[in-house]
Amino acid sequence: MIEECPGGVTAPGGFSAAGVFCGIKRVKKDLSMVLSDSPAACAAVFTANQVPAAPLLVDKLQLRRSAFIRALVVNSGNANACTGERGMGDAWTMIKTAADVLDLEEAQVLVSSTGVIGQYLPMDRIVRGITDAAGQLRRDGGTAAAEAIMTTDTFVKELAVKAVVNGVSVTLGGMAKGSGMIAPNMATMLAFVTTDAAIDPAVLQVALKSAVDRSFNRITVDGDTSTNDMVVVLANGKAGNPEIATVSNPGYVPFLQALQHLLVRLSKMIVVDGEGATKFVEITVRGASTDADAVRAARTIANSNLVKTAIHGEDANWGRILAAVGNAGIPFVPEAVEITFGTVPILKRNYTIDFSEEDAKRVLSGKEITITVDLNAGGGTATFWTCDLSKEYVAINANYRT
Amino acid sequence: MIEECPGGVTAPGGFSAAGVFCGIKRVKKDLSMVLSDSPAACAAVFTANQVPAAPLLVDKLQLRRSAFIRALVVNSGNANACTGERGMGDAWTMIKTAADVLDLEEAQVLVSSTGVIGQYLPMDRIVRGITDAAGQLRRDGGTAAAEAIMTTDTFVKELAVKAVVNGVSVTLGGMAKGSGMIAPNMATMLAFVTTDAAIDPAVLQVALKSAVDRSFNRITVDGDTSTNDMVVVLANGKAGNPEIATVSNPGYVPFLQALQHLLVRLSKMIVVDGEGATKFVEITVRGASTDADAVRAARTIANSNLVKTAIHGEDANWGRILAAVGNAGIPFVPEAVEITFGTVPILKRNYTIDFSEEDAKRVLSGKEITITVDLNAGGGTATFWTCDLSKEYVAINANYRT
Repeated sequence: MIEECPGGVTAPGGFSAAGVFCGIKRVKKDLSMVLSDSPAACAAVFTANQVPAAPLLVDKLQLRRSAFIRALVVNSGNANACTGERGMGDAWTMIKTAADVLDLEEAQVLVSSTGVIGQYLPMDRIVRGITDAAGQLRRDGGTAAAEAIMTTDTFVKELAVKAVVNGVSVTLGGMAKGSGMIAPNMATMLAFVTTDAAIDPAVLQVALKSAVDRSFNRITVDGDTSTNDMVVVLANGKAGNPEIATVSNPGYVPFLQALQHLLVRLSKMIVVDGEGATKFVEITVRGASTDADAVRAARTIANSNLVKTAIHGEDANWGRILAAVGNAGIPFVPEAVEITFGTVPILKRNYTIDFSEEDAKRVLSGKEITITVDLNAGGGTATFWTCDLSKEYVAINANYRT
Repeated sequence: MIEECPGGVTAPGGFSAAGVFCGIKRVKKDLSMVLSDSPAACAAVFTANQVPAAPLLVDKLQLRRSAFIRALVVNSGNANACTGERGMGDAWTMIKTAADVLDLEEAQVLVSSTGVIGQYLPMDRIVRGITDAAGQLRRDGGTAAAEAIMTTDTFVKELAVKAVVNGVSVTLGGMAKGSGMIAPNMATMLAFVTTDAAIDPAVLQVALKSAVDRSFNRITVDGDTSTNDMVVVLANGKAGNPEIATVSNPGYVPFLQALQHLLVRLSKMIVVDGEGATKFVEITVRGASTDADAVRAARTIANSNLVKTAIHGEDANWGRILAAVGNAGIPFVPEAVEITFGTVPILKRNYTIDFSEEDAKRVLSGKEITITVDLNAGGGTATFWTCDLSKEYVAINANYRT
């Protein structure tokens, strides 16, 4: 039983947070801090992009020093990516400053950045911002923290869930940001999750990887991957459940399910808020030879500009979907493929087409569209979430820096 | 010495062509025919997409029956793709009709289609159109034929070149169409080339593959691959050169160079006319470990929506270019990368940035933009051609069928 509840990273016991404006952006909040009252088991996944930003390089070193973390510091408006040694130094300075003002060990702080690539951080403002944020940490500060990690996002993305683990109610809270440069195949974008569950950090890492593979790695807005993507979970054990010390512990599965539920919901929020998105699209491929084939087919469909523009135009252009599958590099028989929009069968076996344009249009004119592609070749399935491709996407990205 | 000259598929001796309106489209020419006076050695490459359209399946069978072809029949406005057995029958009917009216063997005719996927061809109109076209075949009909293969193209794409092969002047003429669904990794889109050179069909096939790999396989408009892509060359030997019977024949290299020159020029025309394109972009990656790595990096940059929208907005967002390289799955050291726009160095080693926004803007405000990315890791190079991503692309593709 997973129960959704309001709030975000401060919903679980023992966490406080703050979000402040320090002057990286023009007016909006741009610096976020999350603090655990006690050392929290930490797991993290980072971008697969080969140009990882400075904070990711620093965090990987930090997590070798300690698997238990007290604080996260995140700035938006500047990615601190492609900034070389100076950028590395700036990331370390953020960590040291936070450790100082919070009176923590340096090894207990992680840092994250998002925004424009290739510009140096305004460190005087950030140092001041970290001090400000430390002074504003509150038990109900989760929403302010979620606001301060936004870039082109149009709404705050946070959620909490409750689950029973080893007989004890635990809470998980999360915040995330999108909304461009979203692609599968990695720990996509920024997401931070807190929980009061007690869980071993190595087990938490296994759970996180598993949950990310079926949530953030199954969404795509534009097929591009980012230099700064990361997902971090902090588990401080305040709920008092018997620790989930191994993956065979009976509490592991309910914890994993709750974590996955939370990450899927946050993933969908990112897609709904995809740059220029007007429609949320769920693409399910089934009947593939293997799950891996289904993933490849679903990803190729979800990344196709031609599919996404057709959906934007509410055009039942099923041929583009089939052509995308043909481009996925998996074995299948085109004549066996069946495509359904919502509950309306569009294409049946042997290229049999028998649908009214009105029925198709009714499905495609909705805000949420489900597309099911059955390859009729086996038991492999996968679901991806994406959005349509609009003129607004172009407008947003044509002038991002300026 | 390769000399460009006006004209297209009827520039070489011994070819005639026609382009007519038969009623697949609303008003524009939609059926094209090319005839060689004598059997012409034929080579062809077809889409890598696993949902090949009916005419491609039929042509592959045809080329097993005969390596010498007399006539090509091409319709636009309807792709005859995803049309099952009825579509196969329609493609055969097109071949039989053409063979009948032209008094040829069935095995000497190839067929090609382009346009919307998943609709049956209006065969009565097409049969009438084939008859009409046969009656209008002319030695100067190349441009009419090139007009009749256009879909969303905004200009006719044709060119001819002359080269000296084994002491004899030969001519190659070509026509092509774009302009969406353009991606590398295959024989992209439709292109038809004629030549009066004498060359063995197997050698011609080797030359065509080699030339396509460095021309049509190096362009991308939207990263999608098509069900109907094909490139066909017909060589009728009318020029009277000693036949190029092997790849070690001294005439092979000049012929290959001329063919490649022609295909590169046609490729660039397709990119210039990319759907919604406002800028032509040449992306060169050098200093990669291998040419194959350079190809992967250049392709990833050329396919990045974020890079293409930034170029559309004339925004010197070099970080997106570097992030795209980081997404290409090749080994490189980010700190060693250098990026140049036109002749303006934008990024130097160790993330050193020293350019004026004015200089960058001057380059990016042009209609033709060259971007050079030096990985400083070896001798591998590759050049790709692409276009920017505009709101107009979305508008064109949101309502393609309607």
